[in-house]
Amino acid sequence: MRIALDAMGSDKFPVPDITGALDAAREYGDTIILVGDEDCIRQELANHHTGSLPLEIIHAPQHITMADHPSQAARSKPDSSIHVATRMVASGEADACVTMGNTGAVLTIATLHTLKRIRGVKRPTLTSIIGIREKKIILTDMGANTDAKPEWIAQFGIMGSVYAASAMGLPNARVGLLSNGEEEDKGNIASREAHELLKDSGLNYIGNIEPRDVMKGHADVIVADGFVGNVFLKTMEAMAETMVGIIRTELVADPRSKMGGFLAKPAFRRVRRIIDPFEIGGAPLLGVNGVIIIGHGRSNALAVKNSIRQARLAVQGNVVNSIREQLATNGTDTKD
Amino acid sequence: MRIALDAMGSDKFPVPDITGALDAAREYGDTIILVGDEDCIRQELANHHTGSLPLEIIHAPQHITMADHPSQAARSKPDSSIHVATRMVASGEADACVTMGNTGAVLTIATLHTLKRIRGVKRPTLTSIIGIREKKIILTDMGANTDAKPEWIAQFGIMGSVYAASAMGLPNARVGLLSNGEEEDKGNIASREAHELLKDSGLNYIGNIEPRDVMKGHADVIVADGFVGNVFLKTMEAMAETMVGIIRTELVADPRSKMGGFLAKPAFRRVRRIIDPFEIGGAPLLGVNGVIIIGHGRSNALAVKNSIRQARLAVQGNVVNSIREQLATNGTDTKD
Repeated sequence: MRIALDAMGSDKFPVPDITGALDAAREYGDTIILVGDEDCIRQELANHHTGSLPLEIIHAPQHITMADHPSQAARSKPDSSIHVATRMVASGEADACVTMGNTGAVLTIATLHTLKRIRGVKRPTLTSIIGIREKKIILTDMGANTDAKPEWIAQFGIMGSVYAASAMGLPNARVGLLSNGEEEDKGNIASREAHELLKDSGLNYIGNIEPRDVMKGHADVIVADGFVGNVFLKTMEAMAETMVGIIRTELVADPRSKMGGFLAKPAFRRVRRIIDPFEIGGAPLLGVNGVIIIGHGRSNALAVKNSIRQARLAVQGNVVNSIREQLATNGTDTKD
Repeated sequence: MRIALDAMGSDKFPVPDITGALDAAREYGDTIILVGDEDCIRQELANHHTGSLPLEIIHAPQHITMADHPSQAARSKPDSSIHVATRMVASGEADACVTMGNTGAVLTIATLHTLKRIRGVKRPTLTSIIGIREKKIILTDMGANTDAKPEWIAQFGIMGSVYAASAMGLPNARVGLLSNGEEEDKGNIASREAHELLKDSGLNYIGNIEPRDVMKGHADVIVADGFVGNVFLKTMEAMAETMVGIIRTELVADPRSKMGGFLAKPAFRRVRRIIDPFEIGGAPLLGVNGVIIIGHGRSNALAVKNSIRQARLAVQGNVVNSIREQLATNGTDTKD
């Protein structure tokens, strides 16, 4: 397998990007194509033992930063590492693309310039894989589409369900619609209409779901408007951090607890690992003509490596073709 | 002060309701008017030492349950304990009303039947006081208004800010708009329009705020559409519980941590107390002609007592008149 890795993506590029890519090449044996400023890449590679690792370098003369405006940068820097890496997927030179770059720019470039939408897809959906205890839950959309129309939301359910089956080995995934209550009349206007569409979708749709039941693992795929999904995901992450902070403060507030906290360090290390989003990697963008995983700018090497693992699973599972087939049989029209 | 307490509100009525009311009467010395089925109330009172506590009983012949449809029940049971208790506030027989009852029914009854909207208020807003570490944060709307229009959202900011000043001693509260990013162009259509209105509102408005910064205490009042605010609040609560569960599991997974967990029990007790929403009480409904605090159906006696404390603070702070004045000077029109 050949995976194009944007070497200029993360906030601290190219160190986490290239380190994670080398770890992935070592562990999985896939060819990693490092895309970005060639000098910059070679300089960083000199710090590593690359030996006989299956690596290639493709020069990209332009660089989109986190400060760049997404759609402006998408137009004004047509040879950015993001453009070049995604174009390699579109042309078949790579099987998948992984980037920790400017999410807005990546969405624009992949959707409108290079990979483009799969026929029948109303809006590609950014899809987070959330680890809760031993379970993995799919959240889609996690932020690409605010003010999502009901038909988009229903399609997110279809694409999320296909991803669960083909990349996560979870056929017939239970799909829930994130809402402010589980009763049928809960939700806002868009979600109530999406609820009706999802009921008729042929999916294993379980109806509205509240955050509490999401965390109990009552559904495998959580569907949401991108604004709501983003607030939900960020609240989960922020609350996990907050709880760790509260516990840390309380553990040093009396001598007995302090000793307890010291002894319980192995447990807290495991907790930190359980809630570490980097253990999972990045977010697949579903609904475009190719596998692309978008990681957080703050990603470390572990997150980059795990994003590459997600890309492999999506390629192996034939996610893109499965979405194509599912949407063809699902009889969705191509009108927006 | 005279506070009307719906004795038939909580899931396990009348025990938590009446127990909490007696605790409040004992601690604060206010007169508590127990509203509900008189036999039921007297039967429960027989289990307590009420001595010379300032109590009154007002019989309400009807009872709205959690299973009742809000607007149907509001019409078909005009002499429910919720109607009677809120009517006492409207008529001046009570200074405030507290209920753990069917939230939808309470909202309908208070807004449309008994207390009614303050002139100029587009939509009353259900307002949660969230404890994060040592800080208290106001979230408004927490669920009464899905699909909130931008002008409603801006008014939630005004009312939340007034509440902070008059009931919580926090003048010039920093108001933030819950969003999927802090940049000005983030948000959905409604929130971006609300952002413009809030900028011109004269409030101490700090702009869009992400969940992470909410939890860091960067704002005092968080404004949101009711659907988003509800998902946010429920995600916080569910994630806090989830973290406690994860930590509990990991603490028994190895002997050293197990001993540590045992020693750290005092710390974990403090943590549980910090994240216990019942430590704060219920949610004030802002924008109606009277003080009303709505607690969760699952409330225990502590939550009922603390809801009564919140009612007292709102009465002492003259919240209702302050909102009236603020909306009058704010020049908002009364058109919906």
